[in-house]
Amino acid sequence: MAEQHREISVAEFFEKNRHLLGFSNPQKAIITCIKEAVDNALDACEEENILPEIHVTIDEVGDEKLRWQVKDNAVGIDKDVIPNIFGKLLYGSKFHKLQQSRGQQGIGISAAGLYAQLTTGNPVKIYSKKKGNEDTHMFKVRIDTQENEPEIIEDRIVDDYEFEHGTSIEMDVEAKYTRGHHSVKNYLKHTAIMNPYARIVLTEPDGNTIEFPRVSKDLPPQPKEIKPHPHGVELGVLMRMIRNTDSRTIKSFMQNEFTRVGRTSADDIIEKTELSGKERPSTLEKDQMETLLEAMQSTNLQNPPTNCLSPIGEDLLERGLKKELNPEFVASVTRKPSVYRGNPYQIEAAIAYGGDIKNEGTYNVLRYANKVPLLYKKSSCATTKAIRDTDWSRYGLSESGERPQGPVYILIHMASVWVPFTSEGKEAIANYPEIVKEMKLAVQDVGRKMKRHISQKRKEKVRRKKRKKLNAYGQILAPSLARLAGSDEQQIQENLTEMLHDEYGEPEDA
Amino acid sequence: MAEQHREISVAEFFEKNRHLLGFSNPQKAIITCIKEAVDNALDACEEENILPEIHVTIDEVGDEKLRWQVKDNAVGIDKDVIPNIFGKLLYGSKFHKLQQSRGQQGIGISAAGLYAQLTTGNPVKIYSKKKGNEDTHMFKVRIDTQENEPEIIEDRIVDDYEFEHGTSIEMDVEAKYTRGHHSVKNYLKHTAIMNPYARIVLTEPDGNTIEFPRVSKDLPPQPKEIKPHPHGVELGVLMRMIRNTDSRTIKSFMQNEFTRVGRTSADDIIEKTELSGKERPSTLEKDQMETLLEAMQSTNLQNPPTNCLSPIGEDLLERGLKKELNPEFVASVTRKPSVYRGNPYQIEAAIAYGGDIKNEGTYNVLRYANKVPLLYKKSSCATTKAIRDTDWSRYGLSESGERPQGPVYILIHMASVWVPFTSEGKEAIANYPEIVKEMKLAVQDVGRKMKRHISQKRKEKVRRKKRKKLNAYGQILAPSLARLAGSDEQQIQENLTEMLHDEYGEPEDA
Repeated sequence: MAEQHREISVAEFFEKNRHLLGFSNPQKAIITCIKEAVDNALDACEEENILPEIHVTIDEVGDEKLRWQVKDNAVGIDKDVIPNIFGKLLYGSKFHKLQQSRGQQGIGISAAGLYAQLTTGNPVKIYSKKKGNEDTHMFKVRIDTQENEPEIIEDRIVDDYEFEHGTSIEMDVEAKYTRGHHSVKNYLKHTAIMNPYARIVLTEPDGNTIEFPRVSKDLPPQPKEIKPHPHGVELGVLMRMIRNTDSRTIKSFMQNEFTRVGRTSADDIIEKTELSGKERPSTLEKDQMETLLEAMQSTNLQNPPTNCLSPIGEDLLERGLKKELNPEFVASVTRKPSVYRGNPYQIEAAIAYGGDIKNEGTYNVLRYANKVPLLYKKSSCATTKAIRDTDWSRYGLSESGERPQGPVYILIHMASVWVPFTSEGKEAIANYPEIVKEMKLAVQDVGRKMKRHISQKRKEKVRRKKRKKLNAYGQILAPSLARLAGSDEQQIQENLTEMLHDEYGEPEDA
Repeated sequence: MAEQHREISVAEFFEKNRHLLGFSNPQKAIITCIKEAVDNALDACEEENILPEIHVTIDEVGDEKLRWQVKDNAVGIDKDVIPNIFGKLLYGSKFHKLQQSRGQQGIGISAAGLYAQLTTGNPVKIYSKKKGNEDTHMFKVRIDTQENEPEIIEDRIVDDYEFEHGTSIEMDVEAKYTRGHHSVKNYLKHTAIMNPYARIVLTEPDGNTIEFPRVSKDLPPQPKEIKPHPHGVELGVLMRMIRNTDSRTIKSFMQNEFTRVGRTSADDIIEKTELSGKERPSTLEKDQMETLLEAMQSTNLQNPPTNCLSPIGEDLLERGLKKELNPEFVASVTRKPSVYRGNPYQIEAAIAYGGDIKNEGTYNVLRYANKVPLLYKKSSCATTKAIRDTDWSRYGLSESGERPQGPVYILIHMASVWVPFTSEGKEAIANYPEIVKEMKLAVQDVGRKMKRHISQKRKEKVRRKKRKKLNAYGQILAPSLARLAGSDEQQIQENLTEMLHDEYGEPEDA
């Protein structure tokens, strides 16, 4: 038995389980590739306060074989980390940070590289030029799947590649370029709605160019990294933190390594334990750590700071929807931040109704996680649960099988330092009850606003109908009234019009 | 930037993404733990042709803290691999084998250990006794999360632990013991249906004991390991196989490392390329490998052998359903094996109708992958897609919103050398179109059988009604007929009864 057991590299694992990464079919594969590269490009630009300018180019190079390139204007990647970033799964700078970003796992772009070499045998090609007058580096990198380690095929300085600074990535993949809901174009369109400060240009395989122009020059404030909050930490993690800390006392450990623990609150916590606070962290026994954890969790502390988050905001949400959908009504809400398992997060929702939006039986949805559109796995997404759990008949929409119906788009955005996706492909948000609840509160808020609009509209319709009818009766009655009252017919007409005007406002054609 | 990048261990990754492993809440956590341990126990027994005898014991040891133990009668685990099996994610013996087994990823049981230490800080406790008069080893193992490496806390020989041979695992976890559909008991009940040769005994926290007795002493034939089939291999994998092979020529490489490639078919393949077959594999260029792959895939070859699979079989399927559900009708089908991405698999389906099964509005479903029940993520499972894509009105059931309705259980089982799960928690089967299609064909097959039963039943009902009516008319008509015809009234009654008998069978009370 023993000799058959062996370690499985994470690259081998995902090679066999590519559908977990979003590579289950050729149509989806190209969307996943572009998504991973564009997410990284947007993150890289925002980190350096650069207005993103991203060029996506896709070419056909064979039967169901596409060559894609994504080029950005960020500050390039340090050449020492390029091989690992593209040739090693689970490698990155964002995993250990409590700070909102699109990438989080260190899997996405190397997974695309894994898929490329699996299906076409070709390595990933990377151009990178740092800001300042540096050289442009060109790398070709493969993944040694059995070891999950990069293999550098080529590494040289080139002078024939044009750009000021930034990164350009190129891969050959088995894929199929399609149009419609599940398409690169639609993915970029949804991205543009949520990232109005980016300019994205897509060149399709037939040479057709589509531009998603920048509609705002305001970059969102950069989210800040925070430390863990005592209320969200678990015993196993606390034990590891205590083992690894450089702090000399358990009190300073708490002040140094957690957010919202100052001297006073550290004292408050320690008072609930048998500890003095002066113990060296490494001397704590397991049951002392358990007591410490209980004390931390039962002590009142300020909520974690929320500048680690970067929601899009109500104004930009509404502008994005108006621009893309031209509805007759739009409403939005940015909820105040909340916390799940110690991770700060914030839910935004918006609703667009009527106007150019057609009633196609069911509702339309725009799902986002950290400004990244989610196109797949709708049915297993927390957003869908929140929408289905809401009683839309209370908000002026009819329902069919738990689905709201009408000329309506519902948008939900989760901004978080850690989004719990249902798979490594980051396609849907897991159904954590506290998250679903926040989402429900958000859609109910915009639902109420829509309801007022719909009621208003219905009232208006009734009012108009009444006015029209009374007016018609008036014209018939006026002569008889005039005869009965012996007064002037025209005077009666005028009085009637005035009365209608007072009661029901301007006539329809006014 | 560079200094912030670092490697993420797979244990760190899953600690943060525990919901991917089935540890999203305390209720589910205990089911996932028991599932992983029982799956391993069943695999271990079957590998050694031992009729499984498994004891599951769950105790409360604190507020939302459970201690669980799973003890089997397999041949124990080699002590050298125990630390890695329980203290390292992605370590195992089944990942690289093309052979049906419950475990496949080398994640499950170590993930349970990860969850245990995260929530209670306690290590995993393992007892193992090999077959033959060996010592019983006791280990306590933790996971060094940052390195994904085991830490041995204790390792000694004990003489106070009673068993003949086998493995016993014990963990303390944050969890909640509940009853109902999502419960350990239900999980074991569903396991018993699919593994009728196992005896499983559950002791609940309140001391209550539930036995799932063995109903068959026939162990299924052991699945055999097979080599990859040329039609299911991809370029990246072929390139790696060529790089790693010990074969001296490309022809012997094909014969040695693939199934269904003999001398003749190897010649057929090589003929389609520019190669002679005598080249050393390591000398092949990339485009030669591409040509070779195309040749392999365009050459007619026998389908892969299917003794790598171990379906349960129509007879046992029906016996299991009859025993558990007592329906009035049951039908089953074991489809012939099929292949997706080179992986042989086989779909089985069964349907149970009426009898003790109540009509509760919607249908009931029993989902299995390699004999393991799937209790969660129904909506994202290929089985659900297959059922919803089927037009059940053709098979005698009414439908509501794509869901069949009626007093009915539908069972679907996928047996495969590699099941494509939607997450590492192995809760649902991914929607590969070819798999969904096979599942649809299977449920349609049992659907047709059910339809015949339902039609027969309806016809029978109509027949009875007619007979009753005619009989009643006859009794009224007979005297008048007798008078009109001048014949004997009793004779007419007798003739009528005879006619009804010929036309509509025995009367109801016969």
